[in-house]
Amino acid sequence: MFREKLKVLDCTIRDGGLINNYHFSDDFVKAVYQGVCKSGVDYMEIGKKLCESDVYTREAYGKWNFCDEDDLKRIVDSYEGETRSVLAVMYDVGRVDTHSLLPAEQSVVGMIRTACYVADIDKGLDLVKACKDQGYETTINIMAPSAAIETDLIEALQQVEETPEVDYLYFVDSFGAFYSEQITAFLKLFKTYAPSKELGFHGHNNQQLAFSNTQQCIIEGVNLLDATVNGIGRGAGNCNLELLLNFLKNPKFDVRPVYKVIQDYMIDLRKEIEWGFNDIYGVSGYLNQHPRAAMKQRSDQENKDNCYDFLLESLGDLE
Amino acid sequence: MFREKLKVLDCTIRDGGLINNYHFSDDFVKAVYQGVCKSGVDYMEIGKKLCESDVYTREAYGKWNFCDEDDLKRIVDSYEGETRSVLAVMYDVGRVDTHSLLPAEQSVVGMIRTACYVADIDKGLDLVKACKDQGYETTINIMAPSAAIETDLIEALQQVEETPEVDYLYFVDSFGAFYSEQITAFLKLFKTYAPSKELGFHGHNNQQLAFSNTQQCIIEGVNLLDATVNGIGRGAGNCNLELLLNFLKNPKFDVRPVYKVIQDYMIDLRKEIEWGFNDIYGVSGYLNQHPRAAMKQRSDQENKDNCYDFLLESLGDLE
Repeated sequence: MFREKLKVLDCTIRDGGLINNYHFSDDFVKAVYQGVCKSGVDYMEIGKKLCESDVYTREAYGKWNFCDEDDLKRIVDSYEGETRSVLAVMYDVGRVDTHSLLPAEQSVVGMIRTACYVADIDKGLDLVKACKDQGYETTINIMAPSAAIETDLIEALQQVEETPEVDYLYFVDSFGAFYSEQITAFLKLFKTYAPSKELGFHGHNNQQLAFSNTQQCIIEGVNLLDATVNGIGRGAGNCNLELLLNFLKNPKFDVRPVYKVIQDYMIDLRKEIEWGFNDIYGVSGYLNQHPRAAMKQRSDQENKDNCYDFLLESLGDLE
Repeated sequence: MFREKLKVLDCTIRDGGLINNYHFSDDFVKAVYQGVCKSGVDYMEIGKKLCESDVYTREAYGKWNFCDEDDLKRIVDSYEGETRSVLAVMYDVGRVDTHSLLPAEQSVVGMIRTACYVADIDKGLDLVKACKDQGYETTINIMAPSAAIETDLIEALQQVEETPEVDYLYFVDSFGAFYSEQITAFLKLFKTYAPSKELGFHGHNNQQLAFSNTQQCIIEGVNLLDATVNGIGRGAGNCNLELLLNFLKNPKFDVRPVYKVIQDYMIDLRKEIEWGFNDIYGVSGYLNQHPRAAMKQRSDQENKDNCYDFLLESLGDLE
């Protein structure tokens, strides 16, 4: 599949950081940055840009939850190659401070992505406007549309359409719940009610469909695609960047640096933290549930593999 | 997705047996049989039906490579439930003896599936005819069409069309190489050149696409779908039966017995044998290669995770 407008965003550090509270070493983040840049991937999301506070400390929550300019510069300066991915960070509604945001020309960050639920769309769009005012490329990432009431989702999409500060409108399969036919049906809503917006997609792999749903989105005209090295990400993880680059025929991409990062770093990392499909996450995705309960089950060493029990509990058969 | 003609075939023992030379315990095979029957799955393929010989012994190759009637009856008789899957076995071209085949009414087997490459289509169809003569339901499973020359594939499809003894014509993604668009393109050939045949699909999960490609086949009118419990199968494994049953809306299926088998047996089995996606198989699928080299790499403890090296070697960059 080749389409010139297709772009890829690596969110290895940002989504992977949800597993370990953003406690990645500089060494690891530098390796990912270099691999992603060398592979020709268009954007790299390197963390969240949240507010520090007495309870929300850097020690507990890791520096890639805050993405201070100094921390970012150290990563960026560690790489001397010519091809560079645009650096992105994520905003969460209610946990950021737009007043401290540097103008884009003074920052190494080029894109700010704002994640929000349908219910918070007004707050989300306010953040997008603040980012655009400072000169950043922007996205609004509507989370968990599979759990939204359709009329509310449509209203949110209409609001996005009326907000010129939004560069990309993201469709996010937060629960890993969608099948390809549903991807098509939901994107029809997105295209109907926000026809002027470029679209993005962020999948989760609960049912082993993150990659195939990303392909379906490409077929349906989505032009900005999220993926992570080796599929790392919360719970069942995300679309594997290496599989996606293999699929895309665009000559600007070179998949080899991604495989190098996997071989050199991800195999060892898997000994410390877990991600990827298993049947607990499969049940969670099938039932269109927040992965909270599934992650809790996976952290319970005695019951982590008891997918039958988890299914029955989830279905309420044991109540 | 509900379509009354849709049927599911479990090949847990037959494809899983490729990993351990069919050395599954009776206890395990009974548990799978019971789970599959209880879940309402239409067919269960319990092994291959090959010829024993001095070099090809039962000790080395496992009883589910031979599927003697006595062995099968022991499994069938261990289950007392009312819902029963039709038992199937697989024939490989060149390794079977049709003269010893019992008439279907004297056997617990109801279906014989013949696997062959495009080049062996004549031999394959001869086997199908012999099976049909004895009263069995039949399939012809054309392996590795992704590696066939199109004109040869078309000729084979035309021969299948002219063979009334074939009940199902299978499209087999042996190398886990297909993307959904290619599934559609190949099925167009199948439907054009063998228009009277009911179609089946057998996927492999090298690129995490076995399940999604099975969905694509359903959309394209395929009515017999292969899957295995927990996705067990050679290399990257197959379409996960539990995911497929979750997807299918047919009320005849009950997924819970499948999850029970996973919880009670498959988790422990994973400690002994390996299956499922990893980036070695991903490279193999992407390059449309027989999984032989990938399996060899996975069995080399020192290099099993070196996906970057494997990619370069596969691409010939190291030559």
